[in-house]
Amino acid sequence: MAKDESAQRMEKIVSLCKRRGFIFQSSEIYGGINGFWDYGPLGVELKRNLKDFWWKRNVRERDDMVGMDGAIIMNRAVWKASGHEETFSDPMSDCRVCNTRHRADQLPERDGKPYCPHCGAANMTEPRAFNLMLKSYAGPVENDDNLVYLRPETAQAMFVQFRNILDTSRQKLPFGIAQIGKAFRNEINPRNYIFRSREFEQMEIEYFCRPEDGLKLTDYWLEERLRFYEDIGIPRSKIRINDIPDGDRAFYSKKTYDLEYEFPFGVSELEGVAYRTDYDLSKHIEHSGKPLDYYDEVTKERFVPHVVEPSAGADRTALALLCEAFDEETVTDDKGKSEIRTVMRFHPRMAPIKCGVFPLLKNKPALVEAARSIIASLRADMNVFYDESGAIGRRYRRQDEAGTPFCVTVDFDTVGENGPEKAGTVTLRHRDSMLQERVAITDLKALLLEKIR
Amino acid sequence: MAKDESAQRMEKIVSLCKRRGFIFQSSEIYGGINGFWDYGPLGVELKRNLKDFWWKRNVRERDDMVGMDGAIIMNRAVWKASGHEETFSDPMSDCRVCNTRHRADQLPERDGKPYCPHCGAANMTEPRAFNLMLKSYAGPVENDDNLVYLRPETAQAMFVQFRNILDTSRQKLPFGIAQIGKAFRNEINPRNYIFRSREFEQMEIEYFCRPEDGLKLTDYWLEERLRFYEDIGIPRSKIRINDIPDGDRAFYSKKTYDLEYEFPFGVSELEGVAYRTDYDLSKHIEHSGKPLDYYDEVTKERFVPHVVEPSAGADRTALALLCEAFDEETVTDDKGKSEIRTVMRFHPRMAPIKCGVFPLLKNKPALVEAARSIIASLRADMNVFYDESGAIGRRYRRQDEAGTPFCVTVDFDTVGENGPEKAGTVTLRHRDSMLQERVAITDLKALLLEKIR
Repeated sequence: MAKDESAQRMEKIVSLCKRRGFIFQSSEIYGGINGFWDYGPLGVELKRNLKDFWWKRNVRERDDMVGMDGAIIMNRAVWKASGHEETFSDPMSDCRVCNTRHRADQLPERDGKPYCPHCGAANMTEPRAFNLMLKSYAGPVENDDNLVYLRPETAQAMFVQFRNILDTSRQKLPFGIAQIGKAFRNEINPRNYIFRSREFEQMEIEYFCRPEDGLKLTDYWLEERLRFYEDIGIPRSKIRINDIPDGDRAFYSKKTYDLEYEFPFGVSELEGVAYRTDYDLSKHIEHSGKPLDYYDEVTKERFVPHVVEPSAGADRTALALLCEAFDEETVTDDKGKSEIRTVMRFHPRMAPIKCGVFPLLKNKPALVEAARSIIASLRADMNVFYDESGAIGRRYRRQDEAGTPFCVTVDFDTVGENGPEKAGTVTLRHRDSMLQERVAITDLKALLLEKIR
Repeated sequence: MAKDESAQRMEKIVSLCKRRGFIFQSSEIYGGINGFWDYGPLGVELKRNLKDFWWKRNVRERDDMVGMDGAIIMNRAVWKASGHEETFSDPMSDCRVCNTRHRADQLPERDGKPYCPHCGAANMTEPRAFNLMLKSYAGPVENDDNLVYLRPETAQAMFVQFRNILDTSRQKLPFGIAQIGKAFRNEINPRNYIFRSREFEQMEIEYFCRPEDGLKLTDYWLEERLRFYEDIGIPRSKIRINDIPDGDRAFYSKKTYDLEYEFPFGVSELEGVAYRTDYDLSKHIEHSGKPLDYYDEVTKERFVPHVVEPSAGADRTALALLCEAFDEETVTDDKGKSEIRTVMRFHPRMAPIKCGVFPLLKNKPALVEAARSIIASLRADMNVFYDESGAIGRRYRRQDEAGTPFCVTVDFDTVGENGPEKAGTVTLRHRDSMLQERVAITDLKALLLEKIR
């Protein structure tokens, strides 16, 4: 796609997300806040569907995985041990003229000399490391003893609780711990909408294994994660697998795959699947003095497990779902008039609303009552939306923009006004093809459930 | 219950939660961190069940409610407008001798004079307001412009986004916005396990209405919330309704009910249902200058909606579920030996694991295979647990402690070794009564689904 076209597409997606209540700027009425976003009524359902499906697939449907939910704020010692306090930083320079601070490795240059992107003066300080963790103080006094960080990743809680989980869960190697939760990074330049924000949500797995199984399991998890993306509507062909070469990986990693998606603003990382060896557990053994090792009852060996980490961004994946779903097509109506139809082609599993239910006319009590009764029968099993206002065509278009895969219209046939043979049937309209079929109300739930699960 | 007995009961609950993987101290291997807790494998499932049921009941099953998910960090102006920056504080005194800080209203006294609970010196400073919001800085420089707070409640995002949600959701009054998310308070004395911690999760509704409907809807929501607690296993008789009298309510509230549960450490608040009038929206209109009012298309009036806020604590409710479920009973086995059975009597809807599945013997492939096949058939619809180790009685006891309402045992009858008439049946054992019945594998899923939904 040409650059202009991509930028335009991204603008349309952002505009739709605002207009339809997927995503709002946080604190918008106060001018917003850079790097923070809120999910609106449709967005929160999309993200919940994504997170719930991840949890179902990775935790509830597996014997070899358990979940946890750790606090965002942990003992500072965790971040000393993990190396984050010392090295999780970007290089920054200050402008000596206007006192603004900037990424030292992203400064513009004039005659080979860096200058301030704010005032233009070529009088920048030497780069200094700027830690990306957000700091706070937990306790009555703001001193070093009470200094805490908002976690920059969810992973560490799973290493730190490894022993507790091993002791309470009856798991044997290989097994994994999974977690979904918020993390924070003080990005200097939050950008690309919700792709790089300061507050974000991760879906992470730490899969522990015997050292000799690490490489093989990294490939297994790569495959497993590609299958996941396929099952939420992001086909394999849209994901680039970047096998990070020696020298470019973290020094402790023996294998790392980055899974990248072609966003309108460029190809960017959705997930990393990293074989981290025993680095993390060993660091915590060293710093805590606690026995985070494993005793194999069969081989009688005691060793520190290795770990494979599939780490996905929930907001990034939600954004990929939005980008993948967004489509515009020219359609022609009965009268030969063409218009552009905007449609969010979410996988039914991910769609915020599964089914719209419309009475043909809102001033006919029998139609309204029948529509309400369909809503009531579906509601316990899926998210439904009742709409009685405007022409049916316009109601379909509104659901197209929301990404609702199915709409049901209740008409005079339904309530038996045109004879008994069509009574109890409704029009089921399919979002993607716009095709309509007549189905019995009694078949509706099973038919929809099959598609959305 | 006598005080000693209550304290002992609480100790047993805390011990079971640690031993079985419901709750761990955050960062335990580094000595923990005061006021922060992690949910382990069973705890995370319990809390997910609670939050998911709240969401289903309050958002997905209602036409008049939409969800949202706002950022934890918002523009500081939000907290100026809400009054939190100025007044969300506790009075604190410092000890001039040992330099420790304490709640001024909780100091011990000697001869009517407050003294330091740490060193004993009666030389405390005058009380000063200590703000309970955790502070941080978002941006490259730690200055006033970049100062942010971790939200001390989720509610404000729903007021701040009222206009966006009204404009995108097609809702008309009365309607509500619902949100689940983390909040933080720098409690000086975190206490009572996960009841009062510094990081916690809220489940909040802001239900907007016409001014004349506020009082009536407060009573409606009180009733609705009592029904919710009943449906998760906390009977109405266990909840005390505290109708806060005039003078004790926040000055802007015309009615407030506190819903309290009798925890072993005392009767304490689970939820508040507060009629907050138009206070919050008006404050944000005043500070942002934005039109957070409502235009009624029928009456042609323009006004600021009033709001009723049912605000529940997810961790507090999870703790109530744990306390309500915990039970010890003396049971006598076949040989007349008595023992104490510890059983978590969770409502099946809330139970972390719905069904344990056991092959009678682990070295009989036919039994293992049949048990595995039952696991596979149930797994997509519920959380199941496979266990093949130890005597069946011990496996039942382990599931009793986890609160698993049903266990299925696969024996030789199941696989047809004792004739065709019992083939395809299993023993279904009920946690609470310990009664066992024989059921057909083909009936199992429907039978369980009916109980857990």
